[in-house]
Amino acid sequence: MRFELQAVCPETGARAGRIHTAHGIIETPVFMPVGTQATVKGLPQRMLERDLDVRILLANTYHLFLRPGPETIRKLGGLHTFMAWPRAILTDSGGYQVFSLSRLRTVTDRGVLFRSHIDGDEHLFTPESTVDAQLAFGSDILMALDECPAYPAPEKTAREAVDRTVGWARAAWTHYEQRRETEPSAGALFPIVQGSMDPRLRSDCAGALVALNAPGYAIGGLSVGEPRELSLRIAAHTAPLLPADKPRYVMGVGMPEELAEYAARGVDMMDCVLPSRNARNGCLFTSHGRVPIKQARYRDDPAPLDAACSCYTCRTFSRAYLRHLFQAGEMLFSTLATLHNLTYYLDTMRQIRQAILLGSFPAYLSRARSAPAV
Amino acid sequence: MRFELQAVCPETGARAGRIHTAHGIIETPVFMPVGTQATVKGLPQRMLERDLDVRILLANTYHLFLRPGPETIRKLGGLHTFMAWPRAILTDSGGYQVFSLSRLRTVTDRGVLFRSHIDGDEHLFTPESTVDAQLAFGSDILMALDECPAYPAPEKTAREAVDRTVGWARAAWTHYEQRRETEPSAGALFPIVQGSMDPRLRSDCAGALVALNAPGYAIGGLSVGEPRELSLRIAAHTAPLLPADKPRYVMGVGMPEELAEYAARGVDMMDCVLPSRNARNGCLFTSHGRVPIKQARYRDDPAPLDAACSCYTCRTFSRAYLRHLFQAGEMLFSTLATLHNLTYYLDTMRQIRQAILLGSFPAYLSRARSAPAV
Repeated sequence: MRFELQAVCPETGARAGRIHTAHGIIETPVFMPVGTQATVKGLPQRMLERDLDVRILLANTYHLFLRPGPETIRKLGGLHTFMAWPRAILTDSGGYQVFSLSRLRTVTDRGVLFRSHIDGDEHLFTPESTVDAQLAFGSDILMALDECPAYPAPEKTAREAVDRTVGWARAAWTHYEQRRETEPSAGALFPIVQGSMDPRLRSDCAGALVALNAPGYAIGGLSVGEPRELSLRIAAHTAPLLPADKPRYVMGVGMPEELAEYAARGVDMMDCVLPSRNARNGCLFTSHGRVPIKQARYRDDPAPLDAACSCYTCRTFSRAYLRHLFQAGEMLFSTLATLHNLTYYLDTMRQIRQAILLGSFPAYLSRARSAPAV
Repeated sequence: MRFELQAVCPETGARAGRIHTAHGIIETPVFMPVGTQATVKGLPQRMLERDLDVRILLANTYHLFLRPGPETIRKLGGLHTFMAWPRAILTDSGGYQVFSLSRLRTVTDRGVLFRSHIDGDEHLFTPESTVDAQLAFGSDILMALDECPAYPAPEKTAREAVDRTVGWARAAWTHYEQRRETEPSAGALFPIVQGSMDPRLRSDCAGALVALNAPGYAIGGLSVGEPRELSLRIAAHTAPLLPADKPRYVMGVGMPEELAEYAARGVDMMDCVLPSRNARNGCLFTSHGRVPIKQARYRDDPAPLDAACSCYTCRTFSRAYLRHLFQAGEMLFSTLATLHNLTYYLDTMRQIRQAILLGSFPAYLSRARSAPAV
């Protein structure tokens, strides 16, 4: 993996670049759609490729570890072959889902013992085992196991999580370096900066992780319930602590209007289930604000969802039809709505990138800030 | 609507033809995918058009009458515009769903009073009102309200259902002729032959309906629980009673291996929820038999579902991936499985049609009969 920095906004520090991977080039800043169980819910892969021009997908190690399992995926040629996705894949560390989904967790310095939310079977995630799982997947970008404390976290808890995250990142890195000797095609491993909302902890964590000289870094533990201003402040504090010549990934953000804010803080990569999950719940993002499609006012509305959008959904169907599908509980609603919401996110990111490249990002940002909230 | 008979198999009576509609040409024999609520569950319209080359869809009057309602659909430009489907649409009469889904039915000669399965509201379907609803939809082919008795039906019940069906068909026809004076673009109205499993009743019903000189006829009341041999016998008895120069439609059939059997009995049109419903339940039809995809033997199977099939699903994904999607409860499974099963049905129909046109249908039929059951 190679990161090519193309432009930096002198005013904000926003960056445009390219990540070169074995599965194609990713233009940054980039929003990564979430394909939890090796599928972006409701979208055939060819729609991701042809309609959305998605360059990189995120898949969840926790889910794929439990089902169908890393060895099954390896036997079937890796995740790209398994899910017939020829472009890049990032897999998370599994840590976040262990803490949010699984039962009976026991966290030790060695790793996390947990019970599957599917069948209750006991499993152990260690820094080493989650690297192994992601190597079995053949991910282009792997994430190191981290501990993400809930918000708000007492200082002691936050400190312990940082210590553990750093220890795990070192163990993951050592293991990864060993494995890479026999697997030269292994993807890039990114450590994750934790530290809750404490700038000092964030600094300590970033400092320790930067010493690993990894090819990229993530900022985790944001968007876990804290006020939005605070998340942005922590991102603004943390991003400059990371190497300028490596991609920076803020995990789990965000709302459409946050994309430019994170970009303005020097963030190159983001992901979030929001566009796809909200789509399924009938909440659609458009250039003129949010459309809660189930409302009666859309019943007879022949207009496209967003006249400014060129996605298949907006080119083809009316709000009235979309509302009908939603009310009738039809699967096609999820497909069309997810396609639209992801188009909205990816188009927004393309505009941000274009503005950075053209030197007009500050103007873009101030326009975006004065626009009505989506 | 115009029916063009292109070839008749001298041995079996199987027919190949073309139905010319305002929304394109339908090559027969044809299998019509079911789009109950103005969507074929899980398939975007462009997949129906580009992948499957579907020429005609069936939509359900009962469902669309209740939600979003005929007047809403009319206001939005009719069903073709509403669902963005440029090709032909047949809507059923609503009768079958009233008898199978709704509550508190009261059947009189005037019509059927019923309560919606959605909200319990009371509605009345009459021969006239269901024609009006279908005219509001702008269907290319409309069906006359009929009464479909359960199987087995006592002779008296079956006789009464025939009398009512004939009375309703006459009333529908009179009303339709009147409406057509001011709506010259109205679609074609097909009456439905009932008569349970009694050949005499079928003959009486067909005779009375043929007198209406309608542009096409359906055979209803089959595939309601009777043995398959019996359904085929009744179809074989009834089809020749209908005009040779008009399309014949057997409603609600069937299994893949039945398509050729009905074609061999002079049937031109069929529809069934089976390929799409079975797909969603994980039952896939292939050239080498049925594939119950959830079985563990497919867990590591890298082969395509059906190597003889050229659909997107079979070209792109492995059985192992399909099984994973099914086990994980992912929507994409339904989309990919439905696409495949409908491809299987439509390809089968295209082979049947080709064989009839080439004069090789008897050979096709005997090959199909000796093949292992799918």
